[in-house]
Amino acid sequence: MSDFKELKQSVYEANMRLPELGLVLFTFGNASAVDREKEVFGIKPSGVPYDDLKPEDIVIVDFDNNIVEGEMRPSSDTKTHAVLYKNWENIGGVVHTHSTYGTAWAQSQRDIPIMGTTHADHLTTDIPCAPPMDDEMIQGNYEHETGNQILKVFEERDLSYEEVEMVLLGNHAPFTWGKTVDKAVYNSAVLEEVAKMAYLALQINPEAPRLKDSLIRKHWERKHGSDSYYGQE
Amino acid sequence: MSDFKELKQSVYEANMRLPELGLVLFTFGNASAVDREKEVFGIKPSGVPYDDLKPEDIVIVDFDNNIVEGEMRPSSDTKTHAVLYKNWENIGGVVHTHSTYGTAWAQSQRDIPIMGTTHADHLTTDIPCAPPMDDEMIQGNYEHETGNQILKVFEERDLSYEEVEMVLLGNHAPFTWGKTVDKAVYNSAVLEEVAKMAYLALQINPEAPRLKDSLIRKHWERKHGSDSYYGQE
Amino acid sequence: MSDFKELKQSVYEANMRLPELGLVLFTFGNASAVDREKEVFGIKPSGVPYDDLKPEDIVIVDFDNNIVEGEMRPSSDTKTHAVLYKNWENIGGVVHTHSTYGTAWAQSQRDIPIMGTTHADHLTTDIPCAPPMDDEMIQGNYEHETGNQILKVFEERDLSYEEVEMVLLGNHAPFTWGKTVDKAVYNSAVLEEVAKMAYLALQINPEAPRLKDSLIRKHWERKHGSDSYYGQE
Amino acid sequence: MSDFKELKQSVYEANMRLPELGLVLFTFGNASAVDREKEVFGIKPSGVPYDDLKPEDIVIVDFDNNIVEGEMRPSSDTKTHAVLYKNWENIGGVVHTHSTYGTAWAQSQRDIPIMGTTHADHLTTDIPCAPPMDDEMIQGNYEHETGNQILKVFEERDLSYEEVEMVLLGNHAPFTWGKTVDKAVYNSAVLEEVAKMAYLALQINPEAPRLKDSLIRKHWERKHGSDSYYGQE
Repeated sequence: MSDFKELKQSVYEANMRLPELGLVLFTFGNASAVDREKEVFGIKPSGVPYDDLKPEDIVIVDFDNNIVEGEMRPSSDTKTHAVLYKNWENIGGVVHTHSTYGTAWAQSQRDIPIMGTTHADHLTTDIPCAPPMDDEMIQGNYEHETGNQILKVFEERDLSYEEVEMVLLGNHAPFTWGKTVDKAVYNSAVLEEVAKMAYLALQINPEAPRLKDSLIRKHWERKHGSDSYYGQE
Repeated sequence: MSDFKELKQSVYEANMRLPELGLVLFTFGNASAVDREKEVFGIKPSGVPYDDLKPEDIVIVDFDNNIVEGEMRPSSDTKTHAVLYKNWENIGGVVHTHSTYGTAWAQSQRDIPIMGTTHADHLTTDIPCAPPMDDEMIQGNYEHETGNQILKVFEERDLSYEEVEMVLLGNHAPFTWGKTVDKAVYNSAVLEEVAKMAYLALQINPEAPRLKDSLIRKHWERKHGSDSYYGQE
Repeated sequence: MSDFKELKQSVYEANMRLPELGLVLFTFGNASAVDREKEVFGIKPSGVPYDDLKPEDIVIVDFDNNIVEGEMRPSSDTKTHAVLYKNWENIGGVVHTHSTYGTAWAQSQRDIPIMGTTHADHLTTDIPCAPPMDDEMIQGNYEHETGNQILKVFEERDLSYEEVEMVLLGNHAPFTWGKTVDKAVYNSAVLEEVAKMAYLALQINPEAPRLKDSLIRKHWERKHGSDSYYGQE
Repeated sequence: MSDFKELKQSVYEANMRLPELGLVLFTFGNASAVDREKEVFGIKPSGVPYDDLKPEDIVIVDFDNNIVEGEMRPSSDTKTHAVLYKNWENIGGVVHTHSTYGTAWAQSQRDIPIMGTTHADHLTTDIPCAPPMDDEMIQGNYEHETGNQILKVFEERDLSYEEVEMVLLGNHAPFTWGKTVDKAVYNSAVLEEVAKMAYLALQINPEAPRLKDSLIRKHWERKHGSDSYYGQE
């Protein structure tokens, strides 16, 4: 009997939400959730179609990428997840997708500008696009360096991973995270919708300005500030 | 036993139509309906996922934003709805969404130009985009001022809220209304479709002209004029 | 007992296909089919939601727009259908929609250029866009003149209605027709797909040429020529 | 009792996947699979709607286009499939669709540039767009020459059909193939998604560069190289 039954179930359900939300084609995505006490996380096995995925297939891995439980090979992006869990102690889940509009922005190597309150309801800055890595890092421990690349863009721009829960990897695709894996899944869908809205707004008006600071602060504060009044608590 | 059972049911059903019509992601929208005799309206509770929403969750609020009945916190946009009900005595329902194309136009800070008969079947002017508010209004009673901002753009442009049942809030998203909440929901879907058509038409031909006056009048009159011959009455 | 039971059933089924194929929102479309012996056609009643439509609601009208059978008011576009049936004796059905991409092209007042074999499989010319009518015609017998406008663009361009089974009305939307109403419905879906492909191709490469003559002829002939080898007969 | 029951079943199932994946409208597509021992392939009958298709309708054809078994006329594109099977001995299935974004790129007569890792996970080059054929080839044995046109672009660019399993035919639409027909179907969906992402990325940033070589090699190698670590074997 597994010690990780609940963890596996939550990771399984989070992964199954990704095709439901239209965020992944075939196997182009993965979700993981952490058990902070045991210092392990559960993650989707590599290349398994969502239709075939079962809760017991979820692979349990520690923060140094050792398999703790599971018969299958974990996602090829496992090392990226591990870097985020190891360095950002308040996150509970990580999601990676190749969602269409988010990936298009990543391929364009541009931040997604904050252009409306839909964006400001979730974060107060542009969604950062990390530049592609140097060739040595790509040829080396690639997925580990991908995690480092995310940490680096957050350090360089002085961003808080607790306020900005999403990033684009230049030429690749989005990663999102959150206090729980459900929040990370939610953030992946928000990123995709915000990416589509920003794309369309700039097609309509290439000179459209970014959202002004007072509106950014207002929408963030009413949802996330000390006097927030959005939601039921 | 609630005095507002029917009102709550109609508000519940109108809210549930929004995700069905593809107009809201997660909780990014809300619908309300008014009881003119009792001077109250029912509105969606804040931040409750549509899958969890029940008719009895609908919150009953008066025009000064006092909760008359309900255990939950009403939508954070309640004050905007209240301003509209208080000032526009012939409306029966209000809907707010962040629908994708409508929101993109709002983010572009442009009116949606009247480019075809699909638009003229519903209104005879461009869909107005209210400019973002001054910083003091944003930092003050924001959602109340949002309602005032809508009233102001209608006054400045000499528009009738009974003929033009929709507006964009610059950088934010659409609001729509109507004689009933069902009509307000209908108008939200019409706005989204018209927004998409205008977007595409201008991508195909950036010089495409607005619809000429005779066609605007003809399509409006055949549906809404004294000699209308559209529909069954 | 109605003399037109079969006709009504086929018109009902054709109308119900329109929302299934994603070609109409709410009531923005209508299909009709003709009985050439009795010189009448059946058409959707005006403004009736598809969810409420029943076969017995279909209205039977003659070519001079007199109601032959039916309790409801026929589609406001009935006179346009009548002109087509009266003048083009080999058509069996007519469909009008406001499908998104087709309508966007109509609003842009441009023909849909023949850019690929998907288009040439169905017609050998650009899809014509009739210019908006003169003001007097709009203010006069509008829907009748709309039919005349379609006839006029086919005369001026020397097009055969049996080879080109679709048209755009400038600033308005598409009409399609065919030997049967099922073919007319099919043509509406083809027009929408071809409209989307041409839109995208010109966004990718604004200089992309029209399809060359030899390919146009080849694709048309293999499906429609005397030595056609597409399909099962 | 047919000698080809299993082959027909697999071809039937592959064809039925095409509308499920949103890759074909009406009958605009076909899939085939080969039996290398018997030197025949099974292919969809021409013009049969997917809703009516049955496994026993699949037509068995040899590499010289002779019908070996089947009552119906095979797909009008049969000769193109035959050329590919005859010349590329390691392919097991071929798929042709008119999927929207892939066809738009074909109509624009441009290769789909490799702009992201989603693309590099599947092939290391741009997706080639074969130029339209000379008029004599079009007027001659058209579908046979279409196959030759595909072979020619692979020869001229020194591409391996085992590494690049997809092509665009200029002004026409995509063809894909693979070791199995299921892989060919998969490749058709990948092509469509990659086509959409490249379209969007270039709309966002017309100057966006192609993916750099180290990332192309890394993503290809981790999935397809001798030390691949993607998937379960």
